[in-house]
Amino acid sequence: MFSVTVRDHIMIAHSFTGAVFGPAQRLHGATFVVDATFRRPELDDDNIVVDIGLASEQLKTICSSLSYRNLDDDPEFSGVNTSTEFLAKLIADRLAVRIAAGELGPGAAGLTGVEVTLHESHIAWASYERTLR
Amino acid sequence: MFSVTVRDHIMIAHSFTGAVFGPAQRLHGATFVVDATFRRPELDDDNIVVDIGLASEQLKTICSSLSYRNLDDDPEFSGVNTSTEFLAKLIADRLAVRIAAGELGPGAAGLTGVEVTLHESHIAWASYERTLR
Amino acid sequence: MFSVTVRDHIMIAHSFTGAVFGPAQRLHGATFVVDATFRRPELDDDNIVVDIGLASEQLKTICSSLSYRNLDDDPEFSGVNTSTEFLAKLIADRLAVRIAAGELGPGAAGLTGVEVTLHESHIAWASYERTLR
Amino acid sequence: MFSVTVRDHIMIAHSFTGAVFGPAQRLHGATFVVDATFRRPELDDDNIVVDIGLASEQLKTICSSLSYRNLDDDPEFSGVNTSTEFLAKLIADRLAVRIAAGELGPGAAGLTGVEVTLHESHIAWASYERTLR
Amino acid sequence: MFSVTVRDHIMIAHSFTGAVFGPAQRLHGATFVVDATFRRPELDDDNIVVDIGLASEQLKTICSSLSYRNLDDDPEFSGVNTSTEFLAKLIADRLAVRIAAGELGPGAAGLTGVEVTLHESHIAWASYERTLR
Amino acid sequence: MFSVTVRDHIMIAHSFTGAVFGPAQRLHGATFVVDATFRRPELDDDNIVVDIGLASEQLKTICSSLSYRNLDDDPEFSGVNTSTEFLAKLIADRLAVRIAAGELGPGAAGLTGVEVTLHESHIAWASYERTLR
Repeated sequence: MFSVTVRDHIMIAHSFTGAVFGPAQRLHGATFVVDATFRRPELDDDNIVVDIGLASEQLKTICSSLSYRNLDDDPEFSGVNTSTEFLAKLIADRLAVRIAAGELGPGAAGLTGVEVTLHESHIAWASYERTLR
Repeated sequence: MFSVTVRDHIMIAHSFTGAVFGPAQRLHGATFVVDATFRRPELDDDNIVVDIGLASEQLKTICSSLSYRNLDDDPEFSGVNTSTEFLAKLIADRLAVRIAAGELGPGAAGLTGVEVTLHESHIAWASYERTLR
Repeated sequence: MFSVTVRDHIMIAHSFTGAVFGPAQRLHGATFVVDATFRRPELDDDNIVVDIGLASEQLKTICSSLSYRNLDDDPEFSGVNTSTEFLAKLIADRLAVRIAAGELGPGAAGLTGVEVTLHESHIAWASYERTLR
Repeated sequence: MFSVTVRDHIMIAHSFTGAVFGPAQRLHGATFVVDATFRRPELDDDNIVVDIGLASEQLKTICSSLSYRNLDDDPEFSGVNTSTEFLAKLIADRLAVRIAAGELGPGAAGLTGVEVTLHESHIAWASYERTLR
Repeated sequence: MFSVTVRDHIMIAHSFTGAVFGPAQRLHGATFVVDATFRRPELDDDNIVVDIGLASEQLKTICSSLSYRNLDDDPEFSGVNTSTEFLAKLIADRLAVRIAAGELGPGAAGLTGVEVTLHESHIAWASYERTLR
Repeated sequence: MFSVTVRDHIMIAHSFTGAVFGPAQRLHGATFVVDATFRRPELDDDNIVVDIGLASEQLKTICSSLSYRNLDDDPEFSGVNTSTEFLAKLIADRLAVRIAAGELGPGAAGLTGVEVTLHESHIAWASYERTLR
């Protein structure tokens, strides 16, 4: 199995609901360093997993749509704990939609899985891994 | 599949038995940067994999019980090569016991796997991955 | 010249005033990985720069007083751009006060300088360096 | 499942054929930080995954055979895009041959998988994972 | 003293002349992760060292002019060993020219120093530090 | 001012004397990732700070003489707290002796300073910086 990973980041504000979150129930923020991994069992005719330029661009577009915002103000996340885990899945799912739409190029049709890891600090990170197709 | 990872570290002395270990047969030591990963297929009602506060606390407790010691002096490890691989399994198994005992909170009952990676230097690390339940 | 550095982090929300900040004028957030460096020309009688336990504790106390907050809501920062640079100086100055107050132990009286670096992402960080006494 | 990883690096020149590569169609170069991971379900009698000294040596030998070269000049790679993904597989396959030949020691007969990750920058890396025997 | 650092990278081919370079006399290549640090004694009216957006853009422009090339083919570097040290100075000097030309904004007139570090691998890096004005 | 840094590591056991060390008074151990930085104001005729091959070799020789040992057993360190700070100075001073003896090559005669940083974990490190000549 082959994979390629590209890294970007977002900087957001949010708060959490639930005693389990302790002080993070207050409005605070985070830098999430975002690693997006693309997987496939065989390389394409160019000997690559995915067009890394397009993959980086699409990840940047998704990150830009989330970054420099207070996620609490986004109606899409109303009543949702925008945890690191949740955001990893959100970005992975948005990548899957763009892959299906051909925005990572025709070669990306051969991708079979995607994983997104969000690093919230030097001592904590979360991932979500899913299949494609 | 979702995962959350938290990082801590231990600083120990030990020696190894067996020609394969070369100079590491002498009493020496290591800092192990310890990454503990918790996995589950779906998030809990709070939208998280595990209470990260409890997970960090329990990892710290396990690390404290090992750290600042000469493992050669611990009767539990008598006749055992406390290799990086062995210690990764030891910490993973101790986390599994604590998860089963409810010490990572009731939500942790949904965890299906744990992995522990010990970084012994900038050029070497070892992991042990196991299922839960 | 000797130095010792310890690392901690804060997670905060804030916004900036001024066209130079672009999208960061909106309420957003950041994880700042905080490195506090302590300097002195000669080691103390214990052969150390500073009691690393106390240094870590005092840095954690300062970080806790800032973390999991919206800095825009803090009257102390009213009308202030809480930039990475500004926060690096804030934490360095607070450390200097605690050093002067003896909270890093009597040995810390020999410290001659402190530097604080805040990493806001994998591609950007800021530092402030000052003398003591 | 257990694993051990060792790190080395190569510095090479190469160029790519295909519009998908953009400016990387020109002769350029890369440092690849190479992580080689060895996997097995149970530890050997010495409580290890593999003789880490031999594993590091064999990885270094493979890296030396590739490093400080223009891969475009190597007949073995004639007409081949020596992408990060391709080189990850190349190194993994060469490790597999050496494992089978006993060059990582008799204990390495118990290895069941190998994975190689090549980091081409702080924001991009690629992996290839395969089974053994 | 305050500083701000931004990171980018270049991927180049080159060769060296001189026995001291050993195998690096052959045409090979490198990824250089480039850290550009900007220094000044006091913050500007916006509470910053430099417009980080402009600083990142200008560094990217300089990196793009060098990247994905064989430096041996550039007449500017004819007869020059384009060592990591040399390239660190080259990028620092080019940043200094752009700062003087106002391309990092009017606030950058207050900068007093710049330092550039090029990481050529996980085990080697080089820096060049200079004053401005 | 130019600098070049090379990285290596040591793995040692030791204990400390003095209440300030808390649990580290017990026999324990550490991996120290060792960064050795060489400085000079101008490059030599080869456009480099130092022969990086010789610098790496000499650092490795010094590291090997310390590594895989219990420093408490070394008569040289009798009655000495072999703190991270102390070991940084020890390695810097040993490098200085080797530079003076010509073991880093004739070009190293132009070096004006050396700094050694020892990383004891992901959250703590210490440095010692000295002049040469």
